[in-house]
Amino acid sequence: LRKGFPEVVYCEGKTPQQAAEILIRLAETTDASVMGTRSGVEVYHLVAQMRPEFQYDEQARMVYLKRQASPPVGHVVVLAAGTSDLPVAREAVLTLELMGACTTLIVDVGVAGLHRLLEHLDTIYAARVLVVVAGMEGALASVVGGLVDRPVVAVPTSVGYGSHFGGLAPLLSMLNACASGIGTVNIDNGFGAGYLAALINQLGEST
Amino acid sequence: LRKGFPEVVYCEGKTPQQAAEILIRLAETTDASVMGTRSGVEVYHLVAQMRPEFQYDEQARMVYLKRQASPPVGHVVVLAAGTSDLPVAREAVLTLELMGACTTLIVDVGVAGLHRLLEHLDTIYAARVLVVVAGMEGALASVVGGLVDRPVVAVPTSVGYGSHFGGLAPLLSMLNACASGIGTVNIDNGFGAGYLAALINQLGEST
Amino acid sequence: LRKGFPEVVYCEGKTPQQAAEILIRLAETTDASVMGTRSGVEVYHLVAQMRPEFQYDEQARMVYLKRQASPPVGHVVVLAAGTSDLPVAREAVLTLELMGACTTLIVDVGVAGLHRLLEHLDTIYAARVLVVVAGMEGALASVVGGLVDRPVVAVPTSVGYGSHFGGLAPLLSMLNACASGIGTVNIDNGFGAGYLAALINQLGEST
Amino acid sequence: LRKGFPEVVYCEGKTPQQAAEILIRLAETTDASVMGTRSGVEVYHLVAQMRPEFQYDEQARMVYLKRQASPPVGHVVVLAAGTSDLPVAREAVLTLELMGACTTLIVDVGVAGLHRLLEHLDTIYAARVLVVVAGMEGALASVVGGLVDRPVVAVPTSVGYGSHFGGLAPLLSMLNACASGIGTVNIDNGFGAGYLAALINQLGEST
Amino acid sequence: LRKGFPEVVYCEGKTPQQAAEILIRLAETTDASVMGTRSGVEVYHLVAQMRPEFQYDEQARMVYLKRQASPPVGHVVVLAAGTSDLPVAREAVLTLELMGACTTLIVDVGVAGLHRLLEHLDTIYAARVLVVVAGMEGALASVVGGLVDRPVVAVPTSVGYGSHFGGLAPLLSMLNACASGIGTVNIDNGFGAGYLAALINQLGEST
Amino acid sequence: LRKGFPEVVYCEGKTPQQAAEILIRLAETTDASVMGTRSGVEVYHLVAQMRPEFQYDEQARMVYLKRQASPPVGHVVVLAAGTSDLPVAREAVLTLELMGACTTLIVDVGVAGLHRLLEHLDTIYAARVLVVVAGMEGALASVVGGLVDRPVVAVPTSVGYGSHFGGLAPLLSMLNACASGIGTVNIDNGFGAGYLAALINQLGEST
Amino acid sequence: LRKGFPEVVYCEGKTPQQAAEILIRLAETTDASVMGTRSGVEVYHLVAQMRPEFQYDEQARMVYLKRQASPPVGHVVVLAAGTSDLPVAREAVLTLELMGACTTLIVDVGVAGLHRLLEHLDTIYAARVLVVVAGMEGALASVVGGLVDRPVVAVPTSVGYGSHFGGLAPLLSMLNACASGIGTVNIDNGFGAGYLAALINQLGEST
Amino acid sequence: LRKGFPEVVYCEGKTPQQAAEILIRLAETTDASVMGTRSGVEVYHLVAQMRPEFQYDEQARMVYLKRQASPPVGHVVVLAAGTSDLPVAREAVLTLELMGACTTLIVDVGVAGLHRLLEHLDTIYAARVLVVVAGMEGALASVVGGLVDRPVVAVPTSVGYGSHFGGLAPLLSMLNACASGIGTVNIDNGFGAGYLAALINQLGEST
Ligand SMILES: Nc1ncnc2c1ncn2[C@@H]1O[C@H](COP(=O)(O)O)[C@@H](O)[C@H]1O
Ligand SMILES: Nc1ncnc2c1ncn2[C@@H]1O[C@H](COP(=O)(O)O)[C@@H](O)[C@H]1O
Ligand SMILES: Nc1ncnc2c1ncn2[C@@H]1O[C@H](COP(=O)(O)O)[C@@H](O)[C@H]1O
Ligand SMILES: Nc1ncnc2c1ncn2[C@@H]1O[C@H](COP(=O)(O)O)[C@@H](O)[C@H]1O
Ligand SMILES: [Mg+2]
Ligand SMILES: [Mg+2]
Ligand SMILES: [Mg+2]
Ligand SMILES: [Mg+2]
Ligand SMILES: [Mg+2]
Ligand SMILES: [Mg+2]
Ligand SMILES: [Mg+2]
Ligand SMILES: [Mg+2]
Repeated sequence: LRKGFPEVVYCEGKTPQQAAEILIRLAETTDASVMGTRSGVEVYHLVAQMRPEFQYDEQARMVYLKRQASPPVGHVVVLAAGTSDLPVAREAVLTLELMGACTTLIVDVGVAGLHRLLEHLDTIYAARVLVVVAGMEGALASVVGGLVDRPVVAVPTSVGYGSHFGGLAPLLSMLNACASGIGTVNIDNGFGAGYLAALINQLGEST
Repeated sequence: LRKGFPEVVYCEGKTPQQAAEILIRLAETTDASVMGTRSGVEVYHLVAQMRPEFQYDEQARMVYLKRQASPPVGHVVVLAAGTSDLPVAREAVLTLELMGACTTLIVDVGVAGLHRLLEHLDTIYAARVLVVVAGMEGALASVVGGLVDRPVVAVPTSVGYGSHFGGLAPLLSMLNACASGIGTVNIDNGFGAGYLAALINQLGEST
Repeated sequence: LRKGFPEVVYCEGKTPQQAAEILIRLAETTDASVMGTRSGVEVYHLVAQMRPEFQYDEQARMVYLKRQASPPVGHVVVLAAGTSDLPVAREAVLTLELMGACTTLIVDVGVAGLHRLLEHLDTIYAARVLVVVAGMEGALASVVGGLVDRPVVAVPTSVGYGSHFGGLAPLLSMLNACASGIGTVNIDNGFGAGYLAALINQLGEST
Repeated sequence: LRKGFPEVVYCEGKTPQQAAEILIRLAETTDASVMGTRSGVEVYHLVAQMRPEFQYDEQARMVYLKRQASPPVGHVVVLAAGTSDLPVAREAVLTLELMGACTTLIVDVGVAGLHRLLEHLDTIYAARVLVVVAGMEGALASVVGGLVDRPVVAVPTSVGYGSHFGGLAPLLSMLNACASGIGTVNIDNGFGAGYLAALINQLGEST
Repeated sequence: LRKGFPEVVYCEGKTPQQAAEILIRLAETTDASVMGTRSGVEVYHLVAQMRPEFQYDEQARMVYLKRQASPPVGHVVVLAAGTSDLPVAREAVLTLELMGACTTLIVDVGVAGLHRLLEHLDTIYAARVLVVVAGMEGALASVVGGLVDRPVVAVPTSVGYGSHFGGLAPLLSMLNACASGIGTVNIDNGFGAGYLAALINQLGEST
Repeated sequence: LRKGFPEVVYCEGKTPQQAAEILIRLAETTDASVMGTRSGVEVYHLVAQMRPEFQYDEQARMVYLKRQASPPVGHVVVLAAGTSDLPVAREAVLTLELMGACTTLIVDVGVAGLHRLLEHLDTIYAARVLVVVAGMEGALASVVGGLVDRPVVAVPTSVGYGSHFGGLAPLLSMLNACASGIGTVNIDNGFGAGYLAALINQLGEST
Repeated sequence: LRKGFPEVVYCEGKTPQQAAEILIRLAETTDASVMGTRSGVEVYHLVAQMRPEFQYDEQARMVYLKRQASPPVGHVVVLAAGTSDLPVAREAVLTLELMGACTTLIVDVGVAGLHRLLEHLDTIYAARVLVVVAGMEGALASVVGGLVDRPVVAVPTSVGYGSHFGGLAPLLSMLNACASGIGTVNIDNGFGAGYLAALINQLGEST
Repeated sequence: LRKGFPEVVYCEGKTPQQAAEILIRLAETTDASVMGTRSGVEVYHLVAQMRPEFQYDEQARMVYLKRQASPPVGHVVVLAAGTSDLPVAREAVLTLELMGACTTLIVDVGVAGLHRLLEHLDTIYAARVLVVVAGMEGALASVVGGLVDRPVVAVPTSVGYGSHFGGLAPLLSMLNACASGIGTVNIDNGFGAGYLAALINQLGEST
């Protein structure tokens, strides 16, 4: 079942010991890649003592063991509006890579500087699927969705303040986007966006 | 550009005359399919006087002219939790068909009667993409998302009352689904769900 | 005081008789322009019986008497994302004209079709002040704000459905815009936007 | 009055000294069981110095003195969707036990893995009352409610992030459940759920 | 399965024809009682033409066919705070009766007139289960919950205005009630409250 | 002006130095009582070094200098639903005393234990004005409001969790109270409640 | 009990027949004044057939029978920000008069035209209690509260649009007013404001 | 492009090292002023080691390098309702100064003490643009907007508690202001207000 899919552990709300234990057990009982999201570095330290082949990404707060052999397929372009959106974008990128998708990350292309976005038009047009990560007002999803005829996965982030209400502003923005072809995931859910985009990207491969 | 895509008119907030006029002009100036969403039957009557080849779907409240020649491809399964969700589901189905997707509609499979859902497991597993349309608490998205390893497009509907707050309950439910691989669109946005699912479904065709 | 400013009556919540009476009295006791916002056509009919020089704009739902002699000054560009935003945009335009501003209206430049917006770059760059009227996710304010170094007045509209919550989505969007130089007014408040833009535009005149 | 009911102290917002004092006084002035909810371990340490027969449950954050002699009656099944919901579930279980209910706890049966839930069908069907503890989207309540013809007490938890809004998502989900026979308590209110379920369970005993 | 339970049709969002058809089919294919909630009188007229043994309750907006033979059991007391809460209370009462519960309805016992409530103390103490129906601030649930050691099912109603927000005020009130033993159902959900109370009441019978 | 009124400093958001300085200056430049609300003990320490006649109330978090000579007048009864509401109640009491009102504090009279409230009926009936302080669902305001024909000032507190939303539940409860004669102040605003009650109480004195 | 207080019927949600019946019965069984709030004119017509001494106020939507003999006492000043707030203000005034308070109504004193408010300073300073009725942003309550050292009863109205959210804006404004001595009632609750103000006003009379 | 405009870095969500690096690079690659908003003092320390000509404003939490030569133009008056609003007001003032606007700051002019505001009438009337910074209920914007015929930029602050909801109360207040000519920016967005006011102020200069 779910061949080639990584095993995923959501580490938030688990003690480092609990998280590490599950990750190691999964590494031993399956031959899939293993990933722990929302994980502090202590989880990694515990895991690495037993299994030094695990890696840790500080920005994405992900501990993972990459195992797949086959080369990455397709092309998923992940766009992050600002540098503050990078942790979420990076979580998406890592998830995509662990699920076998060829991935390009483009940062700092918020709509307030449209020219910076338009410089990447070729890469954007070449994508099979796109992931748009944006806080503030989340307008990037609409603009990108209007540029392409490909599925866009939109991730609102909690980057903002005041009437941002912890990500509510870009969440509503993305759900109400005037461009078609956009599916939205939960605020800050880089993992979920990467997972969905990987499933979509996979469809482009003939089986 | 956007070869094979239908031209779409959002009729809400336009007079029947305005809507009809745009639909007819699009039918004349392009050779794509033409569809008008959220359209009353008066729009259809106006359009049909000039262009009798247009059709009207009362449940989906859609007026449309289907033009594509090539047979439908792939397989999108649309699941509606209850009969009250049918208008939204039907809007998704019609959009999918106008965009060339082979589509199956399954109705009345709310999670309160799990056996009714599980009777359709074969169809569900055979889908390339799934659209889940649900009001009330919107739990169907999570259950279906847990059953398949395919992209799921979730559409919350405004079917409910009281603390449903016009679709807010299933919207939050779908955004927080414990299953992975789900992208959510706006409340009652059957068109948007169909459009996104069609884009995804299309990726399964080799070009 | 307030030389050259029109007298304004908010007609909502008043009977046509009450509204008409106030409008006529203002026309008689002042020599300013007189305008009634959110006014049904019955108000106009009552007013016009007594004062045929009044005019009525059905789209803006405004009844008004234009009196100023001096030619319009400056340049305010009003951009409406979609045709459904036109009533609000038109209310802004009429207000601007009654307050002596030279005004250009650009419609149907939603960000899902960026090229349509960019076709108007010259007009946009030539503006002294800009008013952006947008429903759905309201992303147009951010994009326009990023293009210009001029004050932008943003007006969210109630055009949308579902998680739009009557204009909340574009309102939050505009308040959280990643571009600087944007001031937001209440949902559907075309009058308020026009008034503020006219005050700003006026500053560009040497006194 | 309220024969056989435990005395309950809500420790949040009290100093450890205050809480300990009340618990000890209740232990001395009544012959009922005594329980302190939402209590840190310091309360226990203070209480145990005077009354070593008190116990402490770290997960449930409950300090308690179990006194009833009669064997537990009936059968309440407590289901927790994920391991992160365990503290709330455990608070319910302990409350049930102190109120004399025979209780079974089933964990990690979230609807994303339906098979894990269905493995417990026999236990579920054997229950007199059920308590469903779930965060995320709270869909478990609907699914369980659909499986049984027994009263279900639903407890939304604050486990989640983003548009979860501290438990609002599963709360609305449970209130809008498409299955009948579900009563909902406050977010994270394991005690309240246990208390209500114990009252219901008690009705199954002939008096 | 579900022996002795009525068949239930939720008529809102169905045409009278659709609703009537389902009700008649259920009357013919099962030997259970049949009830249609949220039903206009036209549904009844259509049903009664074919099946004159159906009845209609205008206040509860329920069309139903009562079939059970065995006498009602137990005792459920339904309390309605004000006369405006009667439609919801009546929906609960009818549901309870169709599910075989012996039911007493007490009206106009809002907490602003405590003496009126306390006049009914004997009946209240005699109940096996209680249903509290209240709009405004919904305080009745807390007061009743404090008086009894029996399960209380609380139903907030949409009776109120302003900051009542369609029932949100009593809903939050009931979820946060300082008395224990209260389970809450959706706003105006008299059917759901009756259903849950009937399930609980049934437990008091020895099987 | 405002003869006999204390000078009030809101210390939140000021450094202890800033707060202390203003308090001392007021003590020196006026002959009124001086009070600092929401003040940590450090403010008191700083003030007391210079002006040892200042006092500090830890529960109310108030530093104050009581100066009025005339004996307290009238009778304000402050009722606190639970012990966790005491800080807010105490802030009200101290404010009342500094404004010259004769005040009685009654604690732990939540509506879940109606008998405890009714034991104080004589005191309650003897009040000229009443202040009701309650968290959770805030039902105490309705019950007290129903008992008396005197003005009631209601203060919702942030005591609660989950769907309490930081005091929103009792705030809405109090605003929607089914009893008449209740005025509500902001969540946790013990000072505001005391101030308003003191103004009302004062009216009972003939001038 | 409640000597001199009118009997009050809340007519919303009652049929004209029901409302009329209760009003007439109260007129016959008590010798107090009788008032029906939120009442359509049909109620009046039904009542007046039997009891022609009843009166009807169309603006306040109140049907009433005024009976008290003693002259009005004290002085309550009711301020309405705009003419659209008049229905609510008038409901307050009528309630005050039926409860024996001497009342002055001041209209059209919104804070955008401060001079119009300040023209009434003498009347404002002469008040024993004040009622402030305001929609839009409700700032009038703060300004009036700052001018006087008397109790202020604030009534937010639903007059506004967009982000007004049916009165939420002025409600929050009044609850957060930077002036002290303000108690707030529910949105549009002119009756409640009048009732509370009358109770306060009454205290100024020596008994 | 954007001649004479400062380069702006938003430091929140960046490490001090990252922020400092960008600030220094901007100082070296442009000859504009450079400013870093929402910056801790550590950023300043890092920057000052390399570039001692940078300055730090602790209250505004801004690190900046002022470079423009030309004397400030126009006149922007910034009004802060209370001292707690000073950090936001100061952020606006500094932004205005770096953008070349002649600026006056007036503090402690909340509407509860109208006389303090009116003492500054001359300065207020002399302004070309005004910025109003206010927490609590934000009424100052309406009052100031009513006094002047100049553009007003309103900034709600998060100063408040309870039903303030982190600035929501004054935000809604300002959006619904009954005075015309007000544009609102996000809660606590002193920078954004200063930026917009500077753009407007600049228009008053002839080019
Ligand atoms: N960051 C995340 N956000 C949402 N869901 C996640 C995240 N990481 C993992 N999950 C989901 O959580 C499940 C694992 O949860 P658990 O069994 O509690 O570790 C996986 O199957 C994922 O679908
Ligand atoms: N008033 C009601 N509120 C909520 N759920 C209801 C109501 N009436 C019926 N139901 C549920 O709706 C189901 C029937 O829905 P349907 O199949 O659409 O008629 C029944 O199984 C009931 O559990
Ligand atoms: N407009 C109103 N808003 C809120 N409460 C009201 C209103 N009018 C009457 N009431 C209250 O409702 C009670 C009468 O309700 P009822 O018995 O349903 O007619 C009276 O005792 C009043 O306290
Ligand atoms: N305090 C602030 N609030 C909102 N936006 C800001 C603030 N400070 C700077 N900005 C904007 O953020 C942009 C810089 O963001 P960044 O590139 O992440 O440093 C600038 O162009 C400003 O328009
Ligand atoms: Mg697209
Ligand atoms: Mg899946
Ligand atoms: Mg700009
Ligand atoms: Mg069930
Ligand atoms: Mg109880
Ligand atoms: Mg009372
Ligand atoms: Mg005052
Ligand atoms: Mg003005």
